[in-house]
Amino acid sequence: MHRILAGIVACTPAVSALAQDTPVIHDAEYYILEAQHSDQWAKDDAAVDAKLAAFREQNGGKPPNIINILIDDMGYGDMGIPELNAVRGYSTPNINAFSDAAMRMARMYTEPSCTPTRVAQMTGRLPVRMGMGDTTVDIAGFGLPEGEVTIAEILSEAGYATVHVGKWHMGDIPEAWPHNQGFDWAAFPVHQQGQLTIYHDDAIREQVSVGMKDFEGAFTLDDFFRPDASAMVTGLEAAKGGMAREVGMEPGERWNAAKYDEMNQRYQDQALDQLRALAVGDQPFFLQYWPLLPLDNTRTGREGPQSPNGGLYVDKMQQLDVWLGDLFTEMEELGVAENTVVLLMGDNGHFTKYSPQSGFTPMIFAGGKGDVTEGGIRVDSFIRWPGMIEADGIVNDIVHVSDMFVTFARFAGAEAGIPRDRLIDGVDQSALLLQGEGKSRRDYIFAYSIDKPKAIIKEHLKLHVPAPGESAIVAQFYDVFRDTHEKYPVSTEVGAWGGQEFVRILGRHIKRKEKYPDAEPARGIPYEGIENLRPESQAAVEAFLLKQAAVVK
Amino acid sequence: MHRILAGIVACTPAVSALAQDTPVIHDAEYYILEAQHSDQWAKDDAAVDAKLAAFREQNGGKPPNIINILIDDMGYGDMGIPELNAVRGYSTPNINAFSDAAMRMARMYTEPSCTPTRVAQMTGRLPVRMGMGDTTVDIAGFGLPEGEVTIAEILSEAGYATVHVGKWHMGDIPEAWPHNQGFDWAAFPVHQQGQLTIYHDDAIREQVSVGMKDFEGAFTLDDFFRPDASAMVTGLEAAKGGMAREVGMEPGERWNAAKYDEMNQRYQDQALDQLRALAVGDQPFFLQYWPLLPLDNTRTGREGPQSPNGGLYVDKMQQLDVWLGDLFTEMEELGVAENTVVLLMGDNGHFTKYSPQSGFTPMIFAGGKGDVTEGGIRVDSFIRWPGMIEADGIVNDIVHVSDMFVTFARFAGAEAGIPRDRLIDGVDQSALLLQGEGKSRRDYIFAYSIDKPKAIIKEHLKLHVPAPGESAIVAQFYDVFRDTHEKYPVSTEVGAWGGQEFVRILGRHIKRKEKYPDAEPARGIPYEGIENLRPESQAAVEAFLLKQAAVVK
Repeated sequence: MHRILAGIVACTPAVSALAQDTPVIHDAEYYILEAQHSDQWAKDDAAVDAKLAAFREQNGGKPPNIINILIDDMGYGDMGIPELNAVRGYSTPNINAFSDAAMRMARMYTEPSCTPTRVAQMTGRLPVRMGMGDTTVDIAGFGLPEGEVTIAEILSEAGYATVHVGKWHMGDIPEAWPHNQGFDWAAFPVHQQGQLTIYHDDAIREQVSVGMKDFEGAFTLDDFFRPDASAMVTGLEAAKGGMAREVGMEPGERWNAAKYDEMNQRYQDQALDQLRALAVGDQPFFLQYWPLLPLDNTRTGREGPQSPNGGLYVDKMQQLDVWLGDLFTEMEELGVAENTVVLLMGDNGHFTKYSPQSGFTPMIFAGGKGDVTEGGIRVDSFIRWPGMIEADGIVNDIVHVSDMFVTFARFAGAEAGIPRDRLIDGVDQSALLLQGEGKSRRDYIFAYSIDKPKAIIKEHLKLHVPAPGESAIVAQFYDVFRDTHEKYPVSTEVGAWGGQEFVRILGRHIKRKEKYPDAEPARGIPYEGIENLRPESQAAVEAFLLKQAAVVK
Repeated sequence: MHRILAGIVACTPAVSALAQDTPVIHDAEYYILEAQHSDQWAKDDAAVDAKLAAFREQNGGKPPNIINILIDDMGYGDMGIPELNAVRGYSTPNINAFSDAAMRMARMYTEPSCTPTRVAQMTGRLPVRMGMGDTTVDIAGFGLPEGEVTIAEILSEAGYATVHVGKWHMGDIPEAWPHNQGFDWAAFPVHQQGQLTIYHDDAIREQVSVGMKDFEGAFTLDDFFRPDASAMVTGLEAAKGGMAREVGMEPGERWNAAKYDEMNQRYQDQALDQLRALAVGDQPFFLQYWPLLPLDNTRTGREGPQSPNGGLYVDKMQQLDVWLGDLFTEMEELGVAENTVVLLMGDNGHFTKYSPQSGFTPMIFAGGKGDVTEGGIRVDSFIRWPGMIEADGIVNDIVHVSDMFVTFARFAGAEAGIPRDRLIDGVDQSALLLQGEGKSRRDYIFAYSIDKPKAIIKEHLKLHVPAPGESAIVAQFYDVFRDTHEKYPVSTEVGAWGGQEFVRILGRHIKRKEKYPDAEPARGIPYEGIENLRPESQAAVEAFLLKQAAVVK
């Protein structure tokens, strides 16, 4: 077992201003709702407290364990709806069975791509607040600042054992990494599937990649121009506050599809190993498993199609379904199924670029990853907590991925850990999950693309924010219940009530940044803090630094 | 009760050549499958026969009752999937509960609009075979020929009591009407919701209709040009072989939204009344209830929005859900829930023209009513038969609406009634429904638009048939599992295997028409056989005949 218990290693979470009676600082829209519902919310809070206390009482005084599973680039409806499995010609019985035992949050909004969604879930804040709205594939020299307080830090501080396995993708500098952001132990790739499935040698042979050097180089002057997946650091493992160690790659080795398969199998094995170790520990645990699958891009060396659909992503969905089934079964066998909250959700819409050869297709909503149409930021999302959260239920209230930060803290009795010195975008959804539909504490979303608000949602109305210089009169304004594809604007007259009111909503959001301004991400030397950095990785860092220096000559 | 038992009135079904040992005549593709599967099919048939015999034995020697519910213009996924209800902001709990007790036929194909789908289900034949591929709104003087053999005729001949309530829409001449096509009694509007919801006075006031005279007529020369919904015949009632009687409209009365509401309520009440009468009869029964709702187009005089969505069609969906719930509850109370097969399905895709103000929107598939993309011809479809057909099941095999003709005949033990003197497109799906997925007897569909084959589906491949004069090299060829929106052609090279093979499939289908040629629909004087034809309706017929005569002067 690799897991090292909290307390053995140095632990310096960046938590500050921890007074439970100091209220959490919210965005403006929250206060407008609070003013209208504070009496009811107080009653609901009392009921939630009683329900959580009753749980702890029958759980040996301990709050629930939490398992947090985030899946990459799934389209809405890809998980948990057998009728839509049939439409696409594949089958995920374990995920569907999990869905039958869980509550579906039908209007869970995320950010439009991997990095920002993960940042929002970890910090409870919009990624724009610390400059983490962008996504990188290769070496970038930035990441999540150590000053951010993650849910892992809060839970760790509150006595949880914390483990992360799988995709992380919040930077290539050490302060951004999970073992420096609250996790006792972590196994994770530094980059994402761009490196791991598109930029490698098999992808070149299959003509999937256009970024790699897939030609004879007679005219090549700049060896630093194109990325080399094999030179980039692959999978790291590290204990809290310690040095990281790259695993599975020796100096000179090439990265390929077989290596990717090994990595995925290793994360699955480690997730199960960690679960077994955590289940017998004295602490409640927070296990985060963020699989890389179903993302994959090459067929080389793999088995043939596994589904009537036959598409590669769909086959990998079925693989993932088997793996998650194994995890759920292991939970039963270890006796932790009943006292563990399991969140299973997508991180953003499907990657339309790989439709349809991937087996992924646009379906219920328009657009996908990278878009702020519903297809980019609506995801399948389920939360299971036997006896506490209604099985096979659906809540159709608006939820944002950042809400899970606050809600997990509440479930753990660790609200005091939520920092009171900064704006928190997430709101507490405990009442919604424990008491049912109609109890959400938000009816709004600001949908950013990187650092620009591109859409505003309030109830089921959605404004596509006009670009700078574009007349507000032609701004597009949609009803997402009646028009899931955002195809028929319901009013082009922004001067009428709706558009004007949405402009005010955005105005309040922007105005509030004067008091709580957006900040920059952390910047640093890529790949520091790795004890066995390969020479080719070191060379890649030097090339990166050389390029960086070229602009300040 | 209006129902008149079979045998009291004259009954002359057009059944011919009834020898059970003479095989049914199929299209070419069927024989290719039969040659590969005849041994297995014989085994399956024996198992089906045994299961049907066991049912009859415990049902007092009688075959099952059959209730056939066909819903108008629903989008795929609109019925029976709570997760998609949530996405759209409405709720149909009764239909969803029915779906949980039924088998979903996930790949049920229909024709692309109302008339041809209804013809295919009633006759087991593609509508092109008797020229019924087109749909009319107003007076047209043609309809389903009396020489066609409907499932009602077959079941009536086999001893069933047969009743039709609601939309019919297979012509405005008497031979086309349900009481002359095998039903003991029928209540039905002659036309469809174009007349009943778009062309009336309230629709003009709400500016929904552009076809009506919604302007002052200073420049009007031709009073026969525009339809007048109030002059057209509305709802008829008739007993088998008898004269029809228009109900609910007196001479000089105007048609409007209130009248449409009365008509819908009347059909709902009649469906329940007929069910009560049929349930206590000695005969097994075939009750056909084809509601006009959810189609509606005006708000005048109606209650405000009934759903979070608030769209008119969605509100009407909820109304329909209540009504179907009442029907299902009545079945329980009458003790006929267990010995009755209930088919509930859509007739074609949603009417995109009324998106999104209607609350209907494109979702899983592209296109809608009138298109041969999956959005036009794939429908929600459920069949319930307690103890016989798997509850809450899904079969993902291809089924065509015409198959229900053959399958109902088989369930009723009335295969002998299927005519052997013409080509029958429907195939027997008893094995699929009683034994489960993988047992379909078709893997192909010819998707016609009116009288032209526009798409060919084989397995999950689909060819959009090139238009005449269009090079076959640019024909579009799709994988409907991987690309539900038919957006990314999988091969543009018709010379390669796929296109060539599809051309051969179409060639065999066309070649077979030499032996079994397509025919014309029946033509006649509109509105004959109505004992109380209003003077304005008579005038409208005369105008129609005058226009018809103008071309042969």
